[in-house]
Amino acid sequence: MTIAQTVTSVPSDSGREAAVATLIVDGQDRPGIVESIASVLGRFGANIVSLDQYSDDPDGGQFFQRTEFSVPGLSAVLPDIDEALSSRLSDGFDLRFTLRDTSAPKRVAIFASKSDHCLLELLWRHRRGELPVSIAMVISNHTDTADEVRGFGIPFFHVPSGGPDKTAAEAEHLRLLQGNVDFIVLARYMQIISAEFIEQVDVPIINIHHSFLPAFVGAGPYAKAKERGVKLIGATAHYVTEDLDQGPIIEQDVVRVTHADTAVDLRRRGADVERSVLARAVQWHSEDRVIRHGNHTVVFA
Amino acid sequence: MTIAQTVTSVPSDSGREAAVATLIVDGQDRPGIVESIASVLGRFGANIVSLDQYSDDPDGGQFFQRTEFSVPGLSAVLPDIDEALSSRLSDGFDLRFTLRDTSAPKRVAIFASKSDHCLLELLWRHRRGELPVSIAMVISNHTDTADEVRGFGIPFFHVPSGGPDKTAAEAEHLRLLQGNVDFIVLARYMQIISAEFIEQVDVPIINIHHSFLPAFVGAGPYAKAKERGVKLIGATAHYVTEDLDQGPIIEQDVVRVTHADTAVDLRRRGADVERSVLARAVQWHSEDRVIRHGNHTVVFA
Amino acid sequence: MTIAQTVTSVPSDSGREAAVATLIVDGQDRPGIVESIASVLGRFGANIVSLDQYSDDPDGGQFFQRTEFSVPGLSAVLPDIDEALSSRLSDGFDLRFTLRDTSAPKRVAIFASKSDHCLLELLWRHRRGELPVSIAMVISNHTDTADEVRGFGIPFFHVPSGGPDKTAAEAEHLRLLQGNVDFIVLARYMQIISAEFIEQVDVPIINIHHSFLPAFVGAGPYAKAKERGVKLIGATAHYVTEDLDQGPIIEQDVVRVTHADTAVDLRRRGADVERSVLARAVQWHSEDRVIRHGNHTVVFA
Amino acid sequence: MTIAQTVTSVPSDSGREAAVATLIVDGQDRPGIVESIASVLGRFGANIVSLDQYSDDPDGGQFFQRTEFSVPGLSAVLPDIDEALSSRLSDGFDLRFTLRDTSAPKRVAIFASKSDHCLLELLWRHRRGELPVSIAMVISNHTDTADEVRGFGIPFFHVPSGGPDKTAAEAEHLRLLQGNVDFIVLARYMQIISAEFIEQVDVPIINIHHSFLPAFVGAGPYAKAKERGVKLIGATAHYVTEDLDQGPIIEQDVVRVTHADTAVDLRRRGADVERSVLARAVQWHSEDRVIRHGNHTVVFA
Repeated sequence: MTIAQTVTSVPSDSGREAAVATLIVDGQDRPGIVESIASVLGRFGANIVSLDQYSDDPDGGQFFQRTEFSVPGLSAVLPDIDEALSSRLSDGFDLRFTLRDTSAPKRVAIFASKSDHCLLELLWRHRRGELPVSIAMVISNHTDTADEVRGFGIPFFHVPSGGPDKTAAEAEHLRLLQGNVDFIVLARYMQIISAEFIEQVDVPIINIHHSFLPAFVGAGPYAKAKERGVKLIGATAHYVTEDLDQGPIIEQDVVRVTHADTAVDLRRRGADVERSVLARAVQWHSEDRVIRHGNHTVVFA
Repeated sequence: MTIAQTVTSVPSDSGREAAVATLIVDGQDRPGIVESIASVLGRFGANIVSLDQYSDDPDGGQFFQRTEFSVPGLSAVLPDIDEALSSRLSDGFDLRFTLRDTSAPKRVAIFASKSDHCLLELLWRHRRGELPVSIAMVISNHTDTADEVRGFGIPFFHVPSGGPDKTAAEAEHLRLLQGNVDFIVLARYMQIISAEFIEQVDVPIINIHHSFLPAFVGAGPYAKAKERGVKLIGATAHYVTEDLDQGPIIEQDVVRVTHADTAVDLRRRGADVERSVLARAVQWHSEDRVIRHGNHTVVFA
Repeated sequence: MTIAQTVTSVPSDSGREAAVATLIVDGQDRPGIVESIASVLGRFGANIVSLDQYSDDPDGGQFFQRTEFSVPGLSAVLPDIDEALSSRLSDGFDLRFTLRDTSAPKRVAIFASKSDHCLLELLWRHRRGELPVSIAMVISNHTDTADEVRGFGIPFFHVPSGGPDKTAAEAEHLRLLQGNVDFIVLARYMQIISAEFIEQVDVPIINIHHSFLPAFVGAGPYAKAKERGVKLIGATAHYVTEDLDQGPIIEQDVVRVTHADTAVDLRRRGADVERSVLARAVQWHSEDRVIRHGNHTVVFA
Repeated sequence: MTIAQTVTSVPSDSGREAAVATLIVDGQDRPGIVESIASVLGRFGANIVSLDQYSDDPDGGQFFQRTEFSVPGLSAVLPDIDEALSSRLSDGFDLRFTLRDTSAPKRVAIFASKSDHCLLELLWRHRRGELPVSIAMVISNHTDTADEVRGFGIPFFHVPSGGPDKTAAEAEHLRLLQGNVDFIVLARYMQIISAEFIEQVDVPIINIHHSFLPAFVGAGPYAKAKERGVKLIGATAHYVTEDLDQGPIIEQDVVRVTHADTAVDLRRRGADVERSVLARAVQWHSEDRVIRHGNHTVVFA
């Protein structure tokens, strides 16, 4: 039951778009949830712009709903809507909800290493107005991309990953991040993230893995793909959990390859898939279109 | 405001599936529609299994909603729900709705000519239980597929198309069809359908055109595609209107081709796309997932 | 160095097509191979219709070439071409070759169990003239598809798989197959093939696995895919080796799925991918477009 | 019969790659061409790295062959190979050929207007070493992208397009281009190119059109696509001819859209397809993989 703060210093470009909020509800399914939500929103004169609903089993399964609505004087009335939803949905329903004013874009930190293709794809889409996020910073264990990142007007922090002990680096990451970001994107960041860091940073972390999971978990997936002789290679965007490459999958895609493609060719063709898969995942997360449920995701794309 | 008749001679296999109805609502958007629908359904103890909603403009656009719900004693209570919706939605809203018990599959007639690939794809999927329709008959202007169709236990009627005057053939079609079918599928039926027939038969007609519309309208699209040197060929399923190949598009897909593909190769590869595109369109139409709006479709797939 | 017998009882439809042969050459790369092959063919007045060549490393790698050529009086001259190639290519080159008159289609046995989708896809395509094979027989451990197969005019043999001991069933398989087929297709045949059988039958065996290998090896891949929450499911056609689902991959493809697809939905959508992937693999194998190399394939599609 | 000059100031990174040449041959098909080419190359000790051949009709059609070969001391021996091929292929064959040392990348000028997505895609790929071209300059009728282009170390020239009379602008283009480029790419350049310019500049011009040609020729294809209600949108890379959007197609691709995508959404999703389609077309042209034949292309990708 969180209301994202209305970051008034990041106003939206148009009055009309500023008036839109997203509401995510999930929990134990039972008759009447849709009606209850619609009834609360209706009481405030809200107009439902878009509604997606899914239940994984009509008989006692899990309920998921994403609602976009507009309402006059949104920022003023949002706390009241939040309270009304709390009261109505907690009354006999076992449900969670999140309410967010979309005029306050989510704040993200992007982690990168040497390769720039995923990082640049995100920066460039953001500049074109295609990614509704505020990019707070880029953090890298290398300096290769520093000038380019700063050329986009975005802060770049170099945090060397040091030796096998990541404690110092992760402490520095936490100092930079805490309070400043709503989620993190690992844009081909080639370092393992510790369970402690995941717990302490306490925001969702999206990773792009350069294979079609669960095939080719771990390092060197393109070499493994070449070795196995597959006819398609892929990429997977997923939320990071303690278990390497095992987190909930947000998006995947593939591209056709042939026997004639070398390992270098696979890496190049794969890079294109990585870029588009990560961009879609980040966009959907930014727009509250992804709901985690155990090790799965519900994506209202 | 139609309740599809509960065809008790076509029971569903399981009690639970029989208890599901679909409700399609469309018309002028305004605040409160979702709530009104949910409220009526809630009054009857209905559980919303799935809900898709779309508005083409939040400010005074067109509203579309597809709702699947289950309710105890569905067939008994459906007339009451229909009446309640009529009363509620006509009260200040400019809305149309259709309510259908999904235990009564839609009845379809398939028209075919000599080529069998689209026809067989539908018959075979139906036999596997993948197409929730009742295939009332197959009508063809040739006899080539008669034995095969009857082997599936489905009536086959041969209606020669005669010369340029289709009046007699279309009169025969109307005699066979009227009262017996809810929609018609043209599965590579190579005859022009007259505007009079479309009006008189008065059920939706789905056609598969063997090109990526609006490219290559009319006859011989594969030859035209070869001539133009395109690198992808496609197929389009659309509702039939008076204007040849101009009706609302339901589904399209493409497949990659190369310079080395001959016109025969294009026809073969295209046939695969035709089969899958038509099958998807027929399935979606059967499941009330397609709403026509002017020359467009809203597809809740 | 095999000349496929000219099966005069299976003539091709047109004189021109009958005059085409395929030549597959592979082995240690070195300068001059293309020239040597072209020179031998030129000596017999052959016209090269199509030539594909690939070397996995220009410096001492492996050489692969597929050549289609036409020549007047093909069947009469083929033994002489074979001898000339033997003499020229064995002279200082470490190369294998296979020469085949395409007017004699390869003979295939299809193994099936209860599900019919892959089996029917092959039978349909064959009847439409799209698969250049002679289907010698269908063998199944169930009788479900017997009538349908015989309706296509193709012999059907029921060989129950018995208990855990497959010896008797495999002995019966060998009696039916030996001398009668050039390759075998497992069209969703749900029995493990023993290493002894693979060795004794001594013809290539193509299997369709209902996942995107190497993901989801073994039984129940759709359930595993649902469990992992993947966003694409796939199918893989591969040559059978002793190691389950580990043989050289011929073709793969995927289809997009969502959180809303149940395990039954995955099986249905996957079935469509299985059909098209298996059909492509069988066609390519039939046309000598697939060359095995260790655990890889070179596919000149 | 052109030998691309060996631009010694643009050396390749590795000695081995520098030793590769491409040979394109096309003309009237007849027996013996492959052998003749292989024989000439063999005489110089060349090793054929890759060979693609295609004939559009084995009986008197058109012959196309692309050969990649390596040879010791390539740049020294190339003139001799050229002369030998001239002599051999002109002897009774009606054939054209082009021989090129791949260590000298083709020089390209990119034309752009205000939108940057196609332009940046090419600049990025080039910087990553994925496009084997030398980008000589960017020419634009706007200044929006000047800083970005120069940030990549590439000359930017602003040539305002003036009013309806393009004569002055095109004269300026010719002054900048002549002698300096081997081909031109229109990366969403929103000006019509005159027939006179095409003739005078006398190098291939590749355009990206933001639709799946031949659908939606001319201006505003995304608005037209929205209006027609298509379910896929696409992009087409083609050579420019006098006839708008009618030139030989090099590459096309599509992306799925729905009723819910606005015209703005179509433009964004389409932009991604434009980027990848144009990048592939430019790469293939750079690597001599595209052969024009009338209004068609043969692409050995």
